[in-house]
Formats: sequence, C-alpha cells, structure tokens
Amino acid sequence: MDSAKIQALKTRLDGIAVEDDPALVRKKSRDFYWYSPVLKRVLDSVLGEIVVTPKTEDEVVRTLAAAFALDIPVTPRGAGTGNYGQAMPLAGGMVLDLHELSGIKDIGPGYVIAEAGALLGKIDAATRAHSGQELRMFPSTHRTASIGGFIAGGSGGVGSIRWGGLRNLGNVTRTRVVTMEAHPRVLDLTGDDIAKVAHAYGTNGIITECEVPLTVAYDWIDAIIAFDGMERATAFADALGREDGILLKELSVMGPGVGHRYFSQHGRFLTADQAAVLIMVAPHSASALEAFTRRHRGETVFRSDLIDAETAKSLPPLFELTWNHTTLVARRVEPALTYLQTLYPYPDHVAAVAKMGRLIGDEMMDHLEFIRFDSNIVCSGLPLIRFTTEERLDEIIRIFEDNGCLVFNPHRYTLEEGGMKRSDLGQLAFKREVDPKGLLNPGKMIAWDNPDFDFSDPRPYLFSQPAA
Amino acid sequence: MDSAKIQALKTRLDGIAVEDDPALVRKKSRDFYWYSPVLKRVLDSVLGEIVVTPKTEDEVVRTLAAAFALDIPVTPRGAGTGNYGQAMPLAGGMVLDLHELSGIKDIGPGYVIAEAGALLGKIDAATRAHSGQELRMFPSTHRTASIGGFIAGGSGGVGSIRWGGLRNLGNVTRTRVVTMEAHPRVLDLTGDDIAKVAHAYGTNGIITECEVPLTVAYDWIDAIIAFDGMERATAFADALGREDGILLKELSVMGPGVGHRYFSQHGRFLTADQAAVLIMVAPHSASALEAFTRRHRGETVFRSDLIDAETAKSLPPLFELTWNHTTLVARRVEPALTYLQTLYPYPDHVAAVAKMGRLIGDEMMDHLEFIRFDSNIVCSGLPLIRFTTEERLDEIIRIFEDNGCLVFNPHRYTLEEGGMKRSDLGQLAFKREVDPKGLLNPGKMIAWDNPDFDFSDPRPYLFSQPAA
Ligand SMILES: Cc1cc2nc3c(=O)[nH]c(=O)nc-3n(C[C@H](O)[C@H](O)[C@H](O)COP(=O)(O)OP(=O)(O)OC[C@H]3O[C@@H](n4cnc5c(N)ncnc54)[C@H](O)[C@@H]3O)c2cc1C
Ligand SMILES: Cc1cc2nc3c(=O)[nH]c(=O)nc-3n(C[C@H](O)[C@H](O)[C@H](O)COP(=O)(O)OP(=O)(O)OC[C@H]3O[C@@H](n4cnc5c(N)ncnc54)[C@H](O)[C@@H]3O)c2cc1C
Repeated sequence: MDSAKIQALKTRLDGIAVEDDPALVRKKSRDFYWYSPVLKRVLDSVLGEIVVTPKTEDEVVRTLAAAFALDIPVTPRGAGTGNYGQAMPLAGGMVLDLHELSGIKDIGPGYVIAEAGALLGKIDAATRAHSGQELRMFPSTHRTASIGGFIAGGSGGVGSIRWGGLRNLGNVTRTRVVTMEAHPRVLDLTGDDIAKVAHAYGTNGIITECEVPLTVAYDWIDAIIAFDGMERATAFADALGREDGILLKELSVMGPGVGHRYFSQHGRFLTADQAAVLIMVAPHSASALEAFTRRHRGETVFRSDLIDAETAKSLPPLFELTWNHTTLVARRVEPALTYLQTLYPYPDHVAAVAKMGRLIGDEMMDHLEFIRFDSNIVCSGLPLIRFTTEERLDEIIRIFEDNGCLVFNPHRYTLEEGGMKRSDLGQLAFKREVDPKGLLNPGKMIAWDNPDFDFSDPRPYLFSQPAA
Repeated sequence: MDSAKIQALKTRLDGIAVEDDPALVRKKSRDFYWYSPVLKRVLDSVLGEIVVTPKTEDEVVRTLAAAFALDIPVTPRGAGTGNYGQAMPLAGGMVLDLHELSGIKDIGPGYVIAEAGALLGKIDAATRAHSGQELRMFPSTHRTASIGGFIAGGSGGVGSIRWGGLRNLGNVTRTRVVTMEAHPRVLDLTGDDIAKVAHAYGTNGIITECEVPLTVAYDWIDAIIAFDGMERATAFADALGREDGILLKELSVMGPGVGHRYFSQHGRFLTADQAAVLIMVAPHSASALEAFTRRHRGETVFRSDLIDAETAKSLPPLFELTWNHTTLVARRVEPALTYLQTLYPYPDHVAAVAKMGRLIGDEMMDHLEFIRFDSNIVCSGLPLIRFTTEERLDEIIRIFEDNGCLVFNPHRYTLEEGGMKRSDLGQLAFKREVDPKGLLNPGKMIAWDNPDFDFSDPRPYLFSQPAA
C-alpha cells in the first residue's frame, strides 16, 4: 500500500482504531508459526502494513467496505495463537484484529453467545459464574485464544474425548459472518452452513459472533497414571476412553520419559522411563476411574484433589501440558524439537502407534490425544520429532502415510496442504459470493489461486462440506 | 410358614409395619410378569405370605435378623415394575417392601444419594429443583420405579444412548447393602464391587441406599422423524447416534405402522406404513438435528416444542412409548402381542436388523433402541411378536441366536436364563458370605441351587464380575 492508500483508508475508518506503528504491526503479523522450523523459514518475513481494531460489528462492516473499495487484503486475527501461520498476512495489507470484539451477549441453558474476539477462558469464567456451565471443548490455549479464532483456525482439544471436534455438527450452533463486498452483508449461518467458515482461516468471511453449546462445569480432577512402557499406557487409555460411564474431559498419553523430562512441575511425579496417561475426570467419576486403574494395574502418581492446596496452586492445569502445549513445553527444554499431527487408523490405532514407534525409533517421542471421532474412540498423535532436515521431516510424514496414518501437516500454511479442510466447489462458490475480489486472507486457499486445482483428492479431511 | 412362625416374626418386628392381608400380599407378590405369556403361565400362582415395610435402614437390619433367625425367605421389592417376575416370592415367605425407604439424602454436583425405595421420577424432580440436574439414565417406568429396583433388576433405558447401561463402571457410584446374617452387616460397595449386587435381583443383599451420578437436566425436546421403510429409519438412527456433537437422551426406531397403530396420542402424526425414529434432543442441539434430518431426507412429523401448549400438555412424554413401554401400549391394542429382547451384532447391526425382519416376517414388528455399548453405537431390539405358542417363541429366539444376535429372554425368571447376569464363582462366593442360608429371593439364581452348575458358559453377558 502506498501512503495515499493508507491515508484514504484512515479517512474512511475515522473513529475506528487504526495503527501503523511498525513494532505493533510486526507483532500482530505473527502467530505461533515458529513452532515449525519450516514455517519459520518460509514465513519469517511476512508483514502486514496496518492494524485495524474494530470494537463493534458495525465497525467491522465499515472496515470491510473500506478495504473492498480500496482493494486492501484483510487478514483476520483473534489472539494469534495459531500454529500454522494462519493469521499471518501473506499479501501484506490489513491485519483485522478482533480482540476488542469481546462481549458475551447471552448465556442460557446449554449455550453461550459471544463476540468473536472473546477469549475462551473469559467465556468459561462467565458461564461458570452465571450457571455452572462451560464450553464443551477448547484448545489448550484456553487462557489466550479467542472463540472466533478457534472456530476459524482450530479443530478441537480438551473435551474432544467426549464431544468430538469442531468439525462435528452441533459443536458450533451459529456463526455470524460479515462478507467482503462493496456493501458487506451480515449472515447468520446455522446447521450445515457453518462448515463454510469453520476452519477456513477467515477466507470465507469475518466471524463477528458465535453461538456454541455449553455443558456442565465440574471441578475436574487432574490425574496422572503411570505405566511401564508405552503399550500398556496406550491400551489403558484406549480402554478407558471406551468406558461410557466414566466422565472425562481429557485423555492423553505421553511416551516414556516425556513427562519426566519436559514437564517443569509435574515431571517430578514420573520416573525417567515411565509412560504417562494424563486425565481430567469429573469428581463423581473418580472412584470408577480408580477401580478401572486397579484393573489395569496402573499407578496413580498424581491427583490434583489429593495434594495440599499450596502445592495445587503452584501447578498449571494439566491440560496446559497436553495438545500443542506438549510441544511448547518440550521445546523449552530442547529447542530443536518439532512435531507432527497424525490420526492413527481406527480400529487398529493402538497397534499402529506401536508400529510407528518401531519404524521411526529414537527420532520420535510419542504423544497421543484420545478423541471421539465419528463416535469411535481413536487416537490422534502430536509426536515430538527431533528435527534434523526438512527432507527428513517429509520422509517421516511419508512413512506415517505409507502405514495408513493420516497426517495433518503442521509445517504448511495453506488450508489444502495442512490437510484438515477440504476445498471443494461448494467452498469455492461460497467464497465467490462473499469475497468476490479474493481479499480475505489471500494465499491460504490454493483452490482460489489456482484455476487448475484438482478437486478430486480422495484423501479424507476433517472439515468438509456435507453433500447437499 | 405356620401361624406360630408368623407370630414369632411379628413379635420380633414390633414397631415395623407387617401386613398379612391376603389381597395386599397377593398384590405385593406380583410384578409385570404377565407381559410374558410364558411367565404368566408359570408364575401365576406365586404368593408370599407376609409383607414387611421397613421405614429405615435399622428396620431393614432388624427385619433381616428376624428372618434369618426364623429361616424365612425374603424377596425384596421396590415398586414391582419388573417384567420377569424378579420380585415374585417363588418360595413364599416375606415380601420386603422398600417403598417407604424413600428419602433423598444428599444432592451435589454430579451426584445424588437416595434411599433404595425412592422413585426415579421423584429423585429427578428433587435434583432438578435443587440444581438443574437429572439422572443419567432411567427405565421408561420413570414415574413408577424405584432406584433400588432399577439397580437390582433393570439394565438401562432412556439415557443409555449417551451413557451406556447400568452395567458400566461409573453409572452407579455406591450401593449400601444389608447382609442376610444373624447379625446383618451394612456394606458400602464401590467400584468393581458394585457388580456384586447390580442386576442380581436382590439375591446378594438388600440395597438400602444408592449413590448415582447426575447429569445436567435440559428441557428435552421430543421429536418424531418419519421415513418410508424400516431400512432408511434404521440407517438414519444409527448415523444420528454417531453424531458426537448432537446431544440426545433417547433414540429409538419403530417399524412401519407400529407408531400409527399403537400410539394412542402420537399415532396420528404417522401414516399407516411409516417407520418412525423417536428422539429426545437437547434444545441447543435441535438445529443440528434439523440439519442432519434434512441430509437424510427424513420428515419431522412431531416436535414437542413446536406444538401449542394445550396439545403438549395432553401428550405423554415420548419416552413412555419407548423401551418396554412400547410392548405395553401395543398390548393395549392387541393383547396377544408379546416381545423379545435382543442385541444385534456390532458393527453389522443395521444389516442384522433387516435380515431378521426378512427371516421372521409378519410375525414380528421391529422396535429398536439405540444405545452406547462399550463405546459403540449399537441397537438393541424389543421386537413385538405375535404370540402363537411357546414352542414357536423359542424357535424365534433360536433363529435370532443362529444369526449372531444375543437374546435376553424376557420369558424366564432366573438370572441365568434371562441372560443378562453372569453367575460366576465370585458371585457365588459373595452370596455365601452375605446370604449363607440362601434366603434372599430364593429360586432366582440357578448356580446357587444347582451344585453341578456349569460356569463355563461362553455366552457374553451384560453384567459380569470384572476379572480380579
Ligand atoms: C500452545 C498451543 C496449544 C494449542 N492447542 C490447540 C488445541 O488444543 N486445539 C486446537 O484446535 N488448536 C490449538 N492450538 C492452535 C490455536 O491456539 C487455536 O486454534 C486457537 O483457537 C486459535 O485462536 P486465536 O484466537 O489465537 O486465533 P488466531 O490464531 O488469531 O486465528 C486463527 C485463524 O482464524 C482466523 N480468524 C481469527 N479470528 C477470526 C474471525 N473472527 N473471523 C474469521 N477468521 C478469523 C485467522 O485469520 C487465522 O486464520 C494451539 C496453539 C498453541 C500455540
Ligand atoms: C412398562 C415398563 C417399562 C420398562 N422399561 C424399562 C427400561 O426402560 N429399562 C429397564 O431396565 N427396565 C425397564 N422395565 C423394568 C423395570 O421397570 C425396571 O427395571 C425398574 O427399574 C424396576 O424397578 P422397581 O422398583 O419396580 O423394581 P422391582 O420390580 O420391585 O424389583 C426389581 C428386582 O430388584 C429386586 N429389588 C428391588 N428392590 C431391591 C432392593 N432395595 N435391594 C435389593 N433388591 C431389590 C427385586 O427383588 C427384583 O428382583 C420396564 C418395565 C415396565 C413394566
């Protein structure tokens, strides 16, 4: 953008917060892309030119109208905690920072309506205080991420063992979306239409408001069960996930030594070679969990409800050691570590985990997240990888794929290469409608940029449009 | 019992309600055994001799001590809504009526503690008023059955689509049990020990208090979705059950015509040959259900939240047309109908339903209940059968079994022949401990009466002791 354009934009956005301070713009042009040595290399120089921070939906409408008129690319940003450079403005232009759009508009039995920039932790605090309710699921960035960013850029997390993922019908009830047109429209999407914007990185409209289901909030107990060896830990977790009467919010497995080595506080509860199952369990399911653990001869090495209050307060919530946090805390100890995102093939997932461990060997340390996936208990993996070269990383991915595992490549910034979101003709048609100039988060949807895009990809995706 | 014994008992039970009025004793010696033409024939003359109605656990202890001293058989009774003659005193003696033991002792986040005779509907009313909570699961006899009777004689029901059955660890947290000894002990059973009394027909101790988990109470919406043909209805229900984000409390399928013919009120919403899916859905999942129904081209013919309040009030809750209520309402129209209880083999259950329909033909009308079973969505069946002879009924059972379906024979009154509860050496050892004279509900546990009982039965049972 030349300075005339910037001036024109500022004039049109009179009364709306507009910032072009280079340090701020730089900061707001970044997310957690540096997790990936590949993305670190590829995206390091990406920079927006201006940051606009609307406070209301009306201001969003005015901002998009101005950007449309002036042909300015717009990359929406919630809290910038994405791992794949989703929120990074590849084509420069405007970063649309939604963090001030953070009101909680309504709470009722089983639902909350919040503005897109509201932080997940803030939403949960409000719904808990209001009526003892909480979000069905949240990323481990509960404290820092926004609801709009989660829906537009996330997939699931803590709670997915019970409720599946964001991809599932019913886990988002409604999204309100502003289109990128001369006269931006405000659309309320429900049912199957939500798929048009879910995990679309903001390429299909700016979410201003979200209605999501709530469930009952319990004082979840954090528990760590230790096992000798990964196979016993995995078998236990898989069987526990299948116990319909034991209410869990989180169920993950850390390979031998991972907990001891990388968990700064909880590490001391584990020995150097124990595998660990990390659990959030409802208090009224604790005795059943105990009985089940005894059956499997697991060793309960930590229970947050059984330690003294002082110690308890000094510990982070266990979920901040799970999902993508595992990689974060491990990288604090060994900065050369990176990770993958895998889905082991049901119903042979437990065997597949063991097999991949044998095939890759010491270059990989296991980290599994058990989830409900189309009603089956399966495990996804976020294995820690000792990074050497990008070629070797690609090779490891190929080994996984050759063995029937799905890989959602966290070292790619496009929707299609990331592998979670299917681009199909429906998505494209919707984008043509709501963003005819292709100004929303440009460069993230290959199918938009490449007229020869091959839609026939047989690969299964997490997020795809339901057949009409 | 001779009159001297009765007098001796009355003396020992001074201050406890004891009744020997023949009409009352007769009434309290019956349950819903007459559902089955077989049990009707076999059990019709079963009669107790005296009814004792303790009001407190202490009175239960005194009653059992007296019965032990006098060698009087004791058959516990909750509300007498069992279908298999479970609560009928085969050996005469005492009916121990627990309906006055009905206090609700504590309600907290995720749990309720109630005395055994408390009615399920009363518990739910109290927990809903207290903190918007309700039982995870209940039999369709919600209004009339007791919590103790449910645990001792039931298996699951409304809510099992989400939480599995009573058999699952965590769906009962604790049972307090009085033993049948000279000095009866009071045992608190938790974890795996609960299996000792769950679905044991009271042969292993008298339950006085139950702690069970609660979940959040919603204003469940009753919905009926109509389909042309059983196969489409079954496929829809199976797929719906697998939607992790759509919160259901009930999911059943009625074969073509069943709803129209037998549902006195809801029948008018269905045509003479439509198959129907009966659903209880949380309000905040209603729009997702709608979207899902559209995908499957189902026809929503009834929604309790969309009709006028007047009509709504005149209708029974939909769940009173499901589970064993389906047979009840069908028998009101065609008294010659009876039923079976089946479990179709996962993962081919949908195909198995169609196959059994073809094999049995017009003698059977389908009624399926979808449930979570060891974490899989499966369907159990309560098909309506046009009864001709007992031989033919047995033959139909054999056809089911020959085709890989489990049958829980509702035309048998013993635990073993009913097929839900496994008698094993652990059960027997526990019975020896808590009921050394075999006075509790005699005649219901073959393994107790037959010294040559073969424990090696390879058949899968719903309720079995976990391996130590
Ligand atoms: C330590 C760590 C742990 C994590 N754990 C998880 C996890 O468990 N599960 C998980 O799914 N993810 C996880 N993530 C990724 C990320 O934190 C989440 O997806 C998070 O929800 C993103 O929210 P955000 O507000 O930071 O979004 P951002 O990063 O700001 O944005 C994410 C994407 O959504 C777009 N976007 C943001 N707001 C809007 C809007 N209002 N309208 C349209 N588009 C918008 C952005 O352009 C971007 O493409 C983790 C990341 C880290 C660093
Ligand atoms: C129309 C209809 C629908 C039904 N639907 C279902 C259903 O959906 N799911 C289901 O599981 N069942 C169902 N049933 C069966 C029955 O209603 C339930 O199992 C019910 O929970 C039994 O409770 P009750 O209080 O009537 O027990 P009872 O019939 O009185 O007793 C059941 C058994 O438990 C024993 N018992 C009772 N109280 C105690 C105690 N305190 N301590 C030890 N033993 C005791 C009795 O001796 C007997 O063996 C249905 C029955 C009918 C008639």
